[in-house]
Amino acid sequence: MSKPSAVDLIIHASWIIPVVPRGRILENCSIVIDKDKIVALGVRGELAQHYQPQRELELGGHALIPGLVNAHGHAAMSLMRGFADDKPLMAWLQDHIWPAERSWVSAQFVADGARLAAAEMLASGTTCFSDMYFYPENVAGVAREAGLRAQITAPVLDFPTVWAGDADEYLRKGVALHDQYRACDLITIGFGPHAPYTVSDEPLAKIATYAEELQAPIQIHLHETAEEVATAIDTTGKRPSQRLHALNLLSPLTQCVHMTQVDDCDVALLQETGAHVVHCPESNLKLASGLCPVDKLLRHGVNVCLGTDGAASNNDLDLSDEMRTAALIGKIAADSAAAVDAMTALEMATINGARAMGIDASVGSLEAGKQADIAAIDLSGIQHHPIYDPISHIVYTKAGHMVSHLWIDGKAVVSDYALTTLDVEAIKHNARAWQRKLTGKAQ
Amino acid sequence: MSKPSAVDLIIHASWIIPVVPRGRILENCSIVIDKDKIVALGVRGELAQHYQPQRELELGGHALIPGLVNAHGHAAMSLMRGFADDKPLMAWLQDHIWPAERSWVSAQFVADGARLAAAEMLASGTTCFSDMYFYPENVAGVAREAGLRAQITAPVLDFPTVWAGDADEYLRKGVALHDQYRACDLITIGFGPHAPYTVSDEPLAKIATYAEELQAPIQIHLHETAEEVATAIDTTGKRPSQRLHALNLLSPLTQCVHMTQVDDCDVALLQETGAHVVHCPESNLKLASGLCPVDKLLRHGVNVCLGTDGAASNNDLDLSDEMRTAALIGKIAADSAAAVDAMTALEMATINGARAMGIDASVGSLEAGKQADIAAIDLSGIQHHPIYDPISHIVYTKAGHMVSHLWIDGKAVVSDYALTTLDVEAIKHNARAWQRKLTGKAQ
Repeated sequence: MSKPSAVDLIIHASWIIPVVPRGRILENCSIVIDKDKIVALGVRGELAQHYQPQRELELGGHALIPGLVNAHGHAAMSLMRGFADDKPLMAWLQDHIWPAERSWVSAQFVADGARLAAAEMLASGTTCFSDMYFYPENVAGVAREAGLRAQITAPVLDFPTVWAGDADEYLRKGVALHDQYRACDLITIGFGPHAPYTVSDEPLAKIATYAEELQAPIQIHLHETAEEVATAIDTTGKRPSQRLHALNLLSPLTQCVHMTQVDDCDVALLQETGAHVVHCPESNLKLASGLCPVDKLLRHGVNVCLGTDGAASNNDLDLSDEMRTAALIGKIAADSAAAVDAMTALEMATINGARAMGIDASVGSLEAGKQADIAAIDLSGIQHHPIYDPISHIVYTKAGHMVSHLWIDGKAVVSDYALTTLDVEAIKHNARAWQRKLTGKAQ
Repeated sequence: MSKPSAVDLIIHASWIIPVVPRGRILENCSIVIDKDKIVALGVRGELAQHYQPQRELELGGHALIPGLVNAHGHAAMSLMRGFADDKPLMAWLQDHIWPAERSWVSAQFVADGARLAAAEMLASGTTCFSDMYFYPENVAGVAREAGLRAQITAPVLDFPTVWAGDADEYLRKGVALHDQYRACDLITIGFGPHAPYTVSDEPLAKIATYAEELQAPIQIHLHETAEEVATAIDTTGKRPSQRLHALNLLSPLTQCVHMTQVDDCDVALLQETGAHVVHCPESNLKLASGLCPVDKLLRHGVNVCLGTDGAASNNDLDLSDEMRTAALIGKIAADSAAAVDAMTALEMATINGARAMGIDASVGSLEAGKQADIAAIDLSGIQHHPIYDPISHIVYTKAGHMVSHLWIDGKAVVSDYALTTLDVEAIKHNARAWQRKLTGKAQ
């Protein structure tokens, strides 16, 4: 027998849920990690014959799952958590969020808000997030600082904001950022045209060309409300999905966020083009936008993943909660209690998100050879007793606040519930300072 | 100035949300408790002139709210948490839950399951719960042991179960239990006819008479699914609500659980009779039963409160989560983001539940003279930063796992996150033993 290979870490856990293959649960097994990668999964005794770890970690009562992938958000908006609740989308945007953004958004606001968001996401088991907001260079910087994997989409709008003056400037800055991060494995830079109603045909067509050339992802808010679709039909004669398709914007590089309004033509378009859907259930409920027909989309082979959206319309960034809400309202949308079962919700929160971002070859599941993005969830609490099926508990019985450990690229970013990369007290201090400014109470 | 009165405890908190009056938030204030009652609320310095406490508790960064009232559940079913997920109501009941119950439900099962439920409810801020299950005498015993306020409704069915042989026996046992607990302030005994489709006219009419005589509450599953209503119309020619009304069963003593199917006649009946609605949003979603039109009912003056239902269809007993889900799906049901706002959800989880149980004169809000049923929620975590409005965070940003302290009748039942009345390790041990039995793995 050959000498055991030296590896960095073996974690022993009560349950390992690799997600791929679907539904598999390894009981009382172990996972071997070396440097940034998963080397092997299996029975403890057998692995001991092959691997000599520098460190072993015993996580009895815990389940290991792939780190969660939060496929849509606006990290900096965490500074506006609970700032304006119980308002419809357009009133919420026009009367509250946009005015506050015009007054306060700056590079510093974005960095402080993104740090707040990063801390919350890490603490609740997210290893990879997507972001769409001004000063994306600052969000990318915070992601590196936090050790988080990220897809940062540079915003594109027709009108001027603090970050750029017109569509061309947004695009130029986006391309430059893409260039800057070309060599960074943790960060992918893409394009984030805000929505069909805020970006005109010319920049949308340019984005399609650039994205294809750079193989960069595109993320766009699409069919968020019935009003959006109705207004588009009135003004353009087309559903927004059809207009984007005519502009060559729907492809496997495209992530359509929200999609609460989906007719049969939309399903066919998504199928045909390979565009992905990012479902943000709690934001869609809170803004009364509607229910995305997740079960129908999945049954037609459309890839559906999950996002929290910004904390201003959620009001948290706990993706495990979105799994639960997606499973619960997915049943109402399909009128079937069997729809969007627990395993499906877990896939949406992991491998499907990785697939949408084009990184499923390296993350989204616990498989030998993949990057070691892993969440350990403590299921020993009273609320998790008894345990007939750990997947059920992870989805239906709230797991986000029981994430004891989290690894990204094999690096422990949460250890015994403590963040290792960010200064939580400083982040809270800054959040309180911004709150005083936004409420006019700053000295 | 007169000498300060001796009192047991003064709690100082960053926010006190009394719920009554609606929307009021006391910042950096204190609450005075003596024996089992709230004596006063107010500014720290002023209270110090009037009260001399035996003990003071500093809860900076915390909000104090009334203890949560979980108005519908089946505590013992916590032993079947995650036992059968993603099934429609009737398949779930007939193929999974009822067979397991026939094999395993006993006085011991109920006591062990109720203890598991009690521990989870206390840990997540519930001070009062309603229960409907076999061996209600054992649930009442566990409630006393746990120090929980409870409404226990003795089940009534047409068919025999382990607990009784026929409707008359259920009723006799229920009346005897009511008699036994007549002098117990913490426990109210009522009647729990399971549903219109499992209880015939004669016992229903008797329940109406007994309840009126004893001024005892009635709780019944009603209009849980569209199928229930359609089948009733086919077989009886009436909607279940109309049949109950004809039997004199709808009154201010009656709590109608679920009500996902509500037409204008139902609204008028509820208005006219003063019957209450117990909304169980997560159970209704998980079983794809439908959406209760909460906003419509409230606007018509119907009292709507919240329940978790059993953990087998939820899968937890965290009422703060139900607040959030009720606020979120209440907006979809009403097609308005302004519907079921955060304050309304908090009222549903507290004062409205107390009102349904007929105990709102003594609990459900933080007011001088009321019983001291109080939950302290730690809002100092990263996920609760910044805090523009603590009510928003308590409802929308998950509060159940941040309950640091809980008092019932002035007695600390949770202190620094630890339960003081129940042995958590023994409860978990018993839950695991039942799990082995239910899965055929007992030795």
